[in-house]
Amino acid sequence: MAIRKLLIANRGEIAVRIIRAARELGLRTVQVHSAADAEMLAVKMADEAVNIGPPHAAKSYLNIENILKAAKETGADAVHPGYGFLAENAGFADAVEAAGLVFVGPKGDSIRVMGDKVAARVAAEAAGVPVVPGSDGRVDDPEHARHIAMAIGFPVMIKAAAGGGGRGIRIAHDMAEFETLMPQASAEAKAAFGDGGLYIEKVIERARHIEVQILGDGQRAIHCFERECSLQRRRQKVWEEAPSAVLPQTVREKLCESAVALAEAVNYRGAGTLEYLYDDVTHHFYFIEMNTRIQVEHPVTEMITGIDLVREMIRIAGGEPLSIRQEDVRINGHAIEVRINAEDPAKNFQPAPGTVTALRVPGGPGTRFDTMLYQGYQVPPFYDSLLGKLIVWDTTRAGAIARMARALDELAVEGLSTTKPLHQLLAQDESVAKADFHTRWLEPWLEANAHRLNS
Amino acid sequence: MAIRKLLIANRGEIAVRIIRAARELGLRTVQVHSAADAEMLAVKMADEAVNIGPPHAAKSYLNIENILKAAKETGADAVHPGYGFLAENAGFADAVEAAGLVFVGPKGDSIRVMGDKVAARVAAEAAGVPVVPGSDGRVDDPEHARHIAMAIGFPVMIKAAAGGGGRGIRIAHDMAEFETLMPQASAEAKAAFGDGGLYIEKVIERARHIEVQILGDGQRAIHCFERECSLQRRRQKVWEEAPSAVLPQTVREKLCESAVALAEAVNYRGAGTLEYLYDDVTHHFYFIEMNTRIQVEHPVTEMITGIDLVREMIRIAGGEPLSIRQEDVRINGHAIEVRINAEDPAKNFQPAPGTVTALRVPGGPGTRFDTMLYQGYQVPPFYDSLLGKLIVWDTTRAGAIARMARALDELAVEGLSTTKPLHQLLAQDESVAKADFHTRWLEPWLEANAHRLNS
Repeated sequence: MAIRKLLIANRGEIAVRIIRAARELGLRTVQVHSAADAEMLAVKMADEAVNIGPPHAAKSYLNIENILKAAKETGADAVHPGYGFLAENAGFADAVEAAGLVFVGPKGDSIRVMGDKVAARVAAEAAGVPVVPGSDGRVDDPEHARHIAMAIGFPVMIKAAAGGGGRGIRIAHDMAEFETLMPQASAEAKAAFGDGGLYIEKVIERARHIEVQILGDGQRAIHCFERECSLQRRRQKVWEEAPSAVLPQTVREKLCESAVALAEAVNYRGAGTLEYLYDDVTHHFYFIEMNTRIQVEHPVTEMITGIDLVREMIRIAGGEPLSIRQEDVRINGHAIEVRINAEDPAKNFQPAPGTVTALRVPGGPGTRFDTMLYQGYQVPPFYDSLLGKLIVWDTTRAGAIARMARALDELAVEGLSTTKPLHQLLAQDESVAKADFHTRWLEPWLEANAHRLNS
Repeated sequence: MAIRKLLIANRGEIAVRIIRAARELGLRTVQVHSAADAEMLAVKMADEAVNIGPPHAAKSYLNIENILKAAKETGADAVHPGYGFLAENAGFADAVEAAGLVFVGPKGDSIRVMGDKVAARVAAEAAGVPVVPGSDGRVDDPEHARHIAMAIGFPVMIKAAAGGGGRGIRIAHDMAEFETLMPQASAEAKAAFGDGGLYIEKVIERARHIEVQILGDGQRAIHCFERECSLQRRRQKVWEEAPSAVLPQTVREKLCESAVALAEAVNYRGAGTLEYLYDDVTHHFYFIEMNTRIQVEHPVTEMITGIDLVREMIRIAGGEPLSIRQEDVRINGHAIEVRINAEDPAKNFQPAPGTVTALRVPGGPGTRFDTMLYQGYQVPPFYDSLLGKLIVWDTTRAGAIARMARALDELAVEGLSTTKPLHQLLAQDESVAKADFHTRWLEPWLEANAHRLNS
């Protein structure tokens, strides 16, 4: 492999995850960190660590110049961006390559195309992948936008053409609401992403979020089946599964083949995810966007396929062709991941940073806890609240839910509030047991169950 | 299921393991413990805990009366014996059933037959399973013993007819040595097991230890393929794998089928292991003994088959028929387990009890750490030195070894010495990489590498 020393341009649990994969490949590791993160687990685990700036992400984890300087100083020959921060910044990918380093991810141009929702939609349509009815391209003219909204019918969704992760999305139920929300959405998109461009899409009223994991080497792509992430709060995924409990096999095949077709159409290199909405009544699926990076919820796919996705993406970046044949990728059992965040579910999920005074990690069969935590660790208040991901596997979905309940009971993070009580309730819920949910199921459930979240 | 509350008549990591399985099945748990074990992890995890006596095992974990009293007082309706202690004591199994409780294991009579190596050998021969040439039955007459030794040829092994775990075994290389060792072995067997009966077996000079996991419901049995445990120190397993790296598929089939034949011949109920010696030159295998309990190394089988063996044995004890079909049991990838003991490898593995001042548990894909440890736990000096088992899985054996090295690097148990440095060396060893070893490989390797174990 062409890579010998990998710099991890991220933090938290994903930095730990990347170091593990790098070490198993025999690579040396360089962990960059902000001044607030000198004591984080990935810094302790890496072979070398470099302070790249003050706590504010713009001055450290988003500071391309300092990251490239750290790579040069340590002799790193590759950069893994993780997720978030610079992971889907095409300019960063270009800058890494311009500095003579390997970017562990797709070409900057692939990020550019797929990161622009409008361009991605055009690419999907060209590859024959169904998309949600909406503006076939970005809309800058308010009058044009009004016409589109009328044509596809309310409710409609107003989204930023740039950006991701569900931010900047608004729903208008009628024209009056549409008139109010459109300028707000544009202003927010401009502030967040430096681009006020919008696009408009029909709201699929009762949709499930199903996404397909793909791996490509620039020539050939394979899928690693789907994940279902329909349990969301404020459009952030909360509970993720693989495979989906409701997808008929014939639909699964069509869905996964469509993802491979699109990935191959754009000569995709690395790990990527194609996100779809799925209507479980009509069995129609609609491509919504592609994430050109490793996802938070990648472990559920690893658990059912046995494929180490992070190791594969590093191998591919190192110049190796995709070594896995599509026919060798099989679904084995069922996996579930829940996100353990430093948030207080009894106080409307407000952030709850603090010091971990005691930690007990769940163990036993089919149980994995990917975390940045250790006893004595002080969770800084500056970043995302994700502390770790509890992932379980069993031969059946019912077994996996029972295992999740058991593993959650074992998990103890003392010194701060976490979202564990929410997941304990979900693991006992009848609708969850029947997989009878959709992307708008969790929020009303949270309101109805707020009184049970007082622990 | 007929069981509602399970009493765990054991301690340490296996007690934790059993509680996990019980909880996933929705059972309540009662953990018994000696006065020295009030703070052990299983006590904290169980729904109830009962002190059954002083630290000395004979007064607590081997005290049948106190264990049955604890079951009665707490309303437990089943008892899981784990491994060691009373797990292969037929009288205990009988006493549990006589008290109207479910024994999670085979019938007392099965333990009696298979626990007696001579009777087990007779049963194996009757079922057509090859055995090591030796005394076809126990030998009490020294003159008869001499004749057998002469007939099969030196070196010969002298074993206790009762007992297990490799204790009380001696090897005689000629008749003079045989004369000296025989009375010693008999006296030691009498002291350890209350039975001085011996039997004599040919030494297979360069043998591998391969064992077959089976599950039976009294009517039907299946195998869950083999484990190889050839890396042993003083006949105690140190490093265990599944599957064996050297077994040809045709031999694997014959070996596993022989194990099922023997298990069905004795109407075996529960989880059991048939141990064999395997000669990798001639491809012959020889049955040596059966362990009528769950084994320490069961997780490697769980990792490659996806079967939760402890859950299955509880289900079977609860009256459910075996739910797994033989054709659904498949080998997926490769798993390795190493035993992390509180022993100092730099001081000839002398026991090193103490207090765990810091603990870091390895995580990530394909990594499992079954342990009794938590930060602050004081390891008592009275019992077996096993602290935990680090188990890894990957699609290939080479990948699993790389993962083991990575996971060992992550594992930190501060405050006491452990066998981790030994396993770190083994994970880098060329012979281990090639699976070029046998049951007598590790001890000379340890002598040759003693200077590298000074950490």
